[in-house]
Amino acid sequence: MQKGLIKKIAEKYNTPIYVYSEEILEKNAKNILNFPNAYSLTARYAMKALPTKRILQIFNELGLHIDASSFYEVERAINAGINPKNIQLTSQELPEEKIKYLIEIGVIINACSLRQLEDIGKNSQGINISIRINPGIGSGNTQKVNVGGSLSSFGIWHGQFEEIKNIINKYNLKITKLHTHIGSGNNPEIWKKVAQISLELVKKFENVTTLNLGGGFKVDRMNPQNNTNIEECGNVIEELFVKFNEETGRKLKLEIEPGTYLVANAGFIISKIIDIVKTDKFEFIKTDTGMTEITRPTLYAAQHPITIIPQDETQRKEKEYIFVGHCCESGDLLTPEENNPEIPKPRKITEANIGDLILIGGAGAYCSGMSTKNYNSFPEAPEVLITKNNEIELIRQKQELNQMIQNEK
Amino acid sequence: MQKGLIKKIAEKYNTPIYVYSEEILEKNAKNILNFPNAYSLTARYAMKALPTKRILQIFNELGLHIDASSFYEVERAINAGINPKNIQLTSQELPEEKIKYLIEIGVIINACSLRQLEDIGKNSQGINISIRINPGIGSGNTQKVNVGGSLSSFGIWHGQFEEIKNIINKYNLKITKLHTHIGSGNNPEIWKKVAQISLELVKKFENVTTLNLGGGFKVDRMNPQNNTNIEECGNVIEELFVKFNEETGRKLKLEIEPGTYLVANAGFIISKIIDIVKTDKFEFIKTDTGMTEITRPTLYAAQHPITIIPQDETQRKEKEYIFVGHCCESGDLLTPEENNPEIPKPRKITEANIGDLILIGGAGAYCSGMSTKNYNSFPEAPEVLITKNNEIELIRQKQELNQMIQNEK
Repeated sequence: MQKGLIKKIAEKYNTPIYVYSEEILEKNAKNILNFPNAYSLTARYAMKALPTKRILQIFNELGLHIDASSFYEVERAINAGINPKNIQLTSQELPEEKIKYLIEIGVIINACSLRQLEDIGKNSQGINISIRINPGIGSGNTQKVNVGGSLSSFGIWHGQFEEIKNIINKYNLKITKLHTHIGSGNNPEIWKKVAQISLELVKKFENVTTLNLGGGFKVDRMNPQNNTNIEECGNVIEELFVKFNEETGRKLKLEIEPGTYLVANAGFIISKIIDIVKTDKFEFIKTDTGMTEITRPTLYAAQHPITIIPQDETQRKEKEYIFVGHCCESGDLLTPEENNPEIPKPRKITEANIGDLILIGGAGAYCSGMSTKNYNSFPEAPEVLITKNNEIELIRQKQELNQMIQNEK
Repeated sequence: MQKGLIKKIAEKYNTPIYVYSEEILEKNAKNILNFPNAYSLTARYAMKALPTKRILQIFNELGLHIDASSFYEVERAINAGINPKNIQLTSQELPEEKIKYLIEIGVIINACSLRQLEDIGKNSQGINISIRINPGIGSGNTQKVNVGGSLSSFGIWHGQFEEIKNIINKYNLKITKLHTHIGSGNNPEIWKKVAQISLELVKKFENVTTLNLGGGFKVDRMNPQNNTNIEECGNVIEELFVKFNEETGRKLKLEIEPGTYLVANAGFIISKIIDIVKTDKFEFIKTDTGMTEITRPTLYAAQHPITIIPQDETQRKEKEYIFVGHCCESGDLLTPEENNPEIPKPRKITEANIGDLILIGGAGAYCSGMSTKNYNSFPEAPEVLITKNNEIELIRQKQELNQMIQNEK
């Protein structure tokens, strides 16, 4: 991002602030919409990554559908103008009393447990439905990104085929879609393995016409050249779908549900250096952001690129700093060691002064959407979009203190 | 807590909901206000632990002062009716433009860096001030609770005595209070060591009349019998203050700043079991709460007691379950392994049914105050107080979806 633009945003709206690039959002969306596929593709945006209205609208206009993770997300998407028919709800928590309403307005419910399947049957006999299966394997490096396997509660265990059969017979349901999101990372070989296992499952469900492989296309925020190669992944999957057709005569439609891939590197946080302090061994840069806007480093030891935007034009050397957030919390750290959020790691960077701005990259996914908001009573930061015409559009304004406490008695 | 009361709250306000016991809050406050001390005690509530208005008011009426961690917390405390003179601001982020105003209304600013000291001097020459020193040691088990030592950015490094001197001389400031919070845990021996080091520092500052040792009185949520023995800690510190007086003729006032100790075990979350699912190896209880209300297990592998409140009176056996939250996030876990938030750990507990309530204990501190609020678009949960008369008082009502998105354009 242009330094002039960063300074202009900071001046107009103050810091900390989230900034999203419409150009990058659109580029990512187009990559996803071009995902190689044999017979048909529906790509859903996993909106929990960044649920702001304007972002949903941009993706909606480009042709992406929605993957919602809660009934509230469904409402939020509808509020943003999304056609309910383009929303699929895959949730740990499916409120039974809303099922009839959701089906009536056209939202697709993806049954994620036997209980959900039963609840759907009770409320709407004889319909076509989607089910999420835990195929028994996970692919994440850590539990935190593992959404398949014995230690995962997501989806119906693949061994519970008989139980599924009983419920669908009881309520005359027809399973037409299978969902097997396990968070597959950036390795086409893993995507291949997951697709193979999923296709084996499809063989057991004769009415399935759509296979949803979920998302999890990995993004390397520090080294974007290591991002998942979408085309490669798509190609191996396409091949398997063709082979499946040759074997079975069935032409399966493909669905995918990326979140991070679409927004992670389209988002930034502009923050100000409010202090620089020293101990006997380290130098610390204190910023006016932190876990209130970006909890990922504290939670996952996530690595985010940081750039110093100097106030002046003087020539500067490089120096090592630990970057910390503004909360009164020792874990509020922007530069942890890889794989260890407990240990601060100095980062070599342009020498900084108090008052300089910093730009934190990779901050589109699970930052505004998933942070310890209002901790230390810091208000929710505003969000702006840099449009394709390079205009700055305020898409969410800064929270006021009286909004933060509006429900207190 | 009485089962009848838990059911009544769930019925009236639905789940998930935070519940606080006025009786326990008061008992804890009285323990703290009785902290043994040689010449005088001011106890400040570290409000970031749980900043809800009604909680601030209860502590205020009992005689606790306030430890605020941001300018916003100061405003929030004043809004709750706290006298500004009873508020001390100890923050990583001190907005320079607010310093004059804060001092005018009587808020005590605790200078936490050379920069803050300089800013205070520039704005208000010739005043009495407090400074926070990093004494060079920390006591936490992990970095996340370590707020002293080489790896901590909190306070002015103890070796920067000359720099401090220069600034206070330049602006004619008088340091009358020293602050050395390092999060000292439950071991009276560590408190003794911290007090000794702090008193050595006081000797260098001839005008200091108050020593603030901060908070960090450890609470063991699973085994409250291991909580810090406040009286024992106080006794060792009192002795040292008396000895210091004998040596120097100075009678120091004591300040302490507990957060967790005051509220942790006075708070609960009532949640409902919305699903029970199996894999080949484990059984999972899915709840309608999770990291949206209680992020500590996900963030710190924190252990919280959980009790099943059965709907019926049938005799039940015990069974092992992994408890998970309602977010579409593999890390949303209520029962992690100790010291490893990545690994789910089954907990042996009363056999449960879908629809049973659960009570999560130890949920007063850093739950409502510090969680990944609104993740998956779940609204902020309501909060009730059980008053000393056993009445249920709604102190914060549930957030509406339209409030969550009210600042979007």
